[in-house]
Amino acid sequence: MRVLGIDPGLRNMGWGVIEAEGSRLSHVANGICHSDGDDLAERLLSLYNQLTEIVARFAPDTAAVEQTFVNKDAVGTLKLGQARAIALLVPAQAGVPIGEYAPNKVKKTVVGVGHAAKVQVDHMVKMQLPGVVINGPDAADALAIAICHAHYSRGSAAALRIKGAA
Amino acid sequence: MRVLGIDPGLRNMGWGVIEAEGSRLSHVANGICHSDGDDLAERLLSLYNQLTEIVARFAPDTAAVEQTFVNKDAVGTLKLGQARAIALLVPAQAGVPIGEYAPNKVKKTVVGVGHAAKVQVDHMVKMQLPGVVINGPDAADALAIAICHAHYSRGSAAALRIKGAA
Repeated sequence: MRVLGIDPGLRNMGWGVIEAEGSRLSHVANGICHSDGDDLAERLLSLYNQLTEIVARFAPDTAAVEQTFVNKDAVGTLKLGQARAIALLVPAQAGVPIGEYAPNKVKKTVVGVGHAAKVQVDHMVKMQLPGVVINGPDAADALAIAICHAHYSRGSAAALRIKGAA
Repeated sequence: MRVLGIDPGLRNMGWGVIEAEGSRLSHVANGICHSDGDDLAERLLSLYNQLTEIVARFAPDTAAVEQTFVNKDAVGTLKLGQARAIALLVPAQAGVPIGEYAPNKVKKTVVGVGHAAKVQVDHMVKMQLPGVVINGPDAADALAIAICHAHYSRGSAAALRIKGAA
């Protein structure tokens, strides 16, 4: 089973693809979709195009997106919502089922505690995907989301479509 | 010049198409894209598909989207952000330039005051587009956005790409 993890962000959208065979995980690819500039529509289109290419290239069986952390900064929440729409739209368009996981669920699954530091997440991702070269923190988060999704999807086709798991 | 106005919303996305020849406006079509259900990705995809069809069918020269009103409800802001991403993405994908207008700018342009009641907006939209049959309040808002954009774009090709006008 090939899993795509996505860490949504308007400037940097992390992505990571892993292969899961039972409990054995292996790294396929990871990276970051960038979008810059003033024109929001152009940025969303750029993220959409980059992510569409990734989905076409790696043909994941399932995808997982980090559940947005709703914070107190309304402008930040709005931006995240816009980025997240692209992260959900692109796999849906390719018919790829999507799971959603809260950030502390991802950390708890990958590290063992819900409030792990970024460095711990990074370390555990490297432990579980031997030989991986991670293209920055957003890509590390995306790989962690993919690992989390592989864990919860294991042995259960029905579980592929986990919604709002928290 | 054919103008598409969009009032973004996750459940109901209003749209309206008008034709502007100098100061003369005429109605082309209006309606609402609905999305229901629990699956956010499916809802975004449904809105995307409906809006893509509208853009293909009416081939607007330019589009305008209401600037999101960032309110205090973070969950509402997040939903609006997701809907707005679709409203911006679809015209951008078709190469249609997009203007953005704050709600009070739209009201001020269409009615003359920035804090007009919905019923006033509705009335003025009907005055400016004789014979129009409006398919609900979200479609009325979308037509008002289109009228506002036609007003600011008039006689100026450069002004077609108004960004963050407020």
